[in-house]
Amino acid sequence: MHLYMHDRGHDLSRHRRKTMEFKPYCRKVHYYETDKMGITHHSNYIRWMEEARIDFLEQLGWGFDRLEALGLLSPVLSVNCCYQESTRFRDEVCIRVAVREFRGVKLFLEYEMTNAKNGHQVLTGTTQHCFLDTSFRPVRLKKEFPELNEILCRLAKDRAEGRNLE
Amino acid sequence: MHLYMHDRGHDLSRHRRKTMEFKPYCRKVHYYETDKMGITHHSNYIRWMEEARIDFLEQLGWGFDRLEALGLLSPVLSVNCCYQESTRFRDEVCIRVAVREFRGVKLFLEYEMTNAKNGHQVLTGTTQHCFLDTSFRPVRLKKEFPELNEILCRLAKDRAEGRNLE
Amino acid sequence: MHLYMHDRGHDLSRHRRKTMEFKPYCRKVHYYETDKMGITHHSNYIRWMEEARIDFLEQLGWGFDRLEALGLLSPVLSVNCCYQESTRFRDEVCIRVAVREFRGVKLFLEYEMTNAKNGHQVLTGTTQHCFLDTSFRPVRLKKEFPELNEILCRLAKDRAEGRNLE
Amino acid sequence: MHLYMHDRGHDLSRHRRKTMEFKPYCRKVHYYETDKMGITHHSNYIRWMEEARIDFLEQLGWGFDRLEALGLLSPVLSVNCCYQESTRFRDEVCIRVAVREFRGVKLFLEYEMTNAKNGHQVLTGTTQHCFLDTSFRPVRLKKEFPELNEILCRLAKDRAEGRNLE
Repeated sequence: MHLYMHDRGHDLSRHRRKTMEFKPYCRKVHYYETDKMGITHHSNYIRWMEEARIDFLEQLGWGFDRLEALGLLSPVLSVNCCYQESTRFRDEVCIRVAVREFRGVKLFLEYEMTNAKNGHQVLTGTTQHCFLDTSFRPVRLKKEFPELNEILCRLAKDRAEGRNLE
Repeated sequence: MHLYMHDRGHDLSRHRRKTMEFKPYCRKVHYYETDKMGITHHSNYIRWMEEARIDFLEQLGWGFDRLEALGLLSPVLSVNCCYQESTRFRDEVCIRVAVREFRGVKLFLEYEMTNAKNGHQVLTGTTQHCFLDTSFRPVRLKKEFPELNEILCRLAKDRAEGRNLE
Repeated sequence: MHLYMHDRGHDLSRHRRKTMEFKPYCRKVHYYETDKMGITHHSNYIRWMEEARIDFLEQLGWGFDRLEALGLLSPVLSVNCCYQESTRFRDEVCIRVAVREFRGVKLFLEYEMTNAKNGHQVLTGTTQHCFLDTSFRPVRLKKEFPELNEILCRLAKDRAEGRNLE
Repeated sequence: MHLYMHDRGHDLSRHRRKTMEFKPYCRKVHYYETDKMGITHHSNYIRWMEEARIDFLEQLGWGFDRLEALGLLSPVLSVNCCYQESTRFRDEVCIRVAVREFRGVKLFLEYEMTNAKNGHQVLTGTTQHCFLDTSFRPVRLKKEFPELNEILCRLAKDRAEGRNLE
């Protein structure tokens, strides 16, 4: 998953771009995350998507500690998961996160999870988020956090143009 | 939420139906289900939907013990949640489950969760399921479990006709 | 589990006491609480002990909402569990809580969990707690919450005298 | 934490020992592991102790996959936790595991958890385990798994002699 950071003001036709690369978030399946069917309980994937989202924001330079220090909350509005293949205790899953859409208010993220053991796709999912202040009032990123607004808009734009997924 | 059980072979125009009523599944929010934002962590709703689904199947006469004794598994293929209002420690949520669609293979359930305190809608969601035997091979309900097949088909049909939600 | 509430100022030798009875806290094992061994994962019992503790405090008239409104926190200092028999999905466990010791600072609770199906003992456990204000400073119950102090002291005394467990 | 592996049959007075070093198990606190008090919920430490135990067994060469392939289960008989200092979202905890006692039947492990941020002790704990076959019958390690028996006995002996904790 690559993100090409445009050198704004330069000639894009010459393809001079810096590449911003996101590392997938990887973690092992814990024993207590399995259920009596012998496989990972489906609710845990929602938690791993959160782990990956937090890691993704940190890679962007907008970790939760920074968001929190700025009084910026980002609650989950919706979650969507399509389970493709089960995982088991001690499997390692790798999760890639991308910004699917952002136009200033709602952040729409997508997730792709694979099993490191065999490269099989485990799950695809999406989450939607808004931005609130600590009094739970909506925050306009463009006005109050233009830097974060710009990076999210750009990631969404790049994805639309097919540039941030290899 | 009512389900009208048709007296098959009788004159439906006379509206002679038995009513099958499903009780919503209610439960309180536990302390350990809250997170540092002070509200219920969003992943727990997925678990409560499972609790409600299991209770719904029991009300149908197809509890997990019966499914299990018959060697019938029903894994989750997808989950979808739209969070409308947060809940807090000691709130009580009530969950209604309905069969949205079933045509013999995939079972498509829908959920509506309200906060008992104020009647506000907390969440709407859906899950999709298939039926497998203990070797994880697909099971054709119509052939192997015609009784369960019929009840699910009828619930789906009634919902389509607007009869199983008051 | 009975608690005899002394009629203070009356003749105890005539055994005139009001009985305060605590209902055990009962709940079913959820599917997501099992693990790949097919039984309840041991970590969940710690959570159920918390559920039972909160219920016990409510029966005492000191529910978490009241404690919270008063700015009184009661964190866990230690947990101890002896597992005697495993439980399974859909089993119902019943938990009795008693005050083992309280002399004004540390609250020492004990738990006894049985399986409703067969009455077998599932677990015995203890927890220790202190009382803090919202700035995490120790609170002297005797001075600031004499009513709660008295009820906890009395429960501990009655237990020592063998009166609050039938 | 060091474990000196004796060169059996050699002159110990010359201190010729191989050193077996165990790496502590480290992991970050997840958002969903916090509760409304703003700190890690106490039940999660029990799960982290399991994560550390599994990692410890892997370092010993007796990972769960190997135990499982041999049909060897090791359920938890008791858990004991003393909480010393709370942890928060994004803190990293490091857990050291040691064999406190083993004489062929019950395995008695101890845990020490520190906060990587400041080195403060977060928790000390113990767990007790037995060994069962897949029919839940007790297994005599000495007879059936002498290699595992010996390593556990030696670790317990070394700890008693103060050699496996730096």
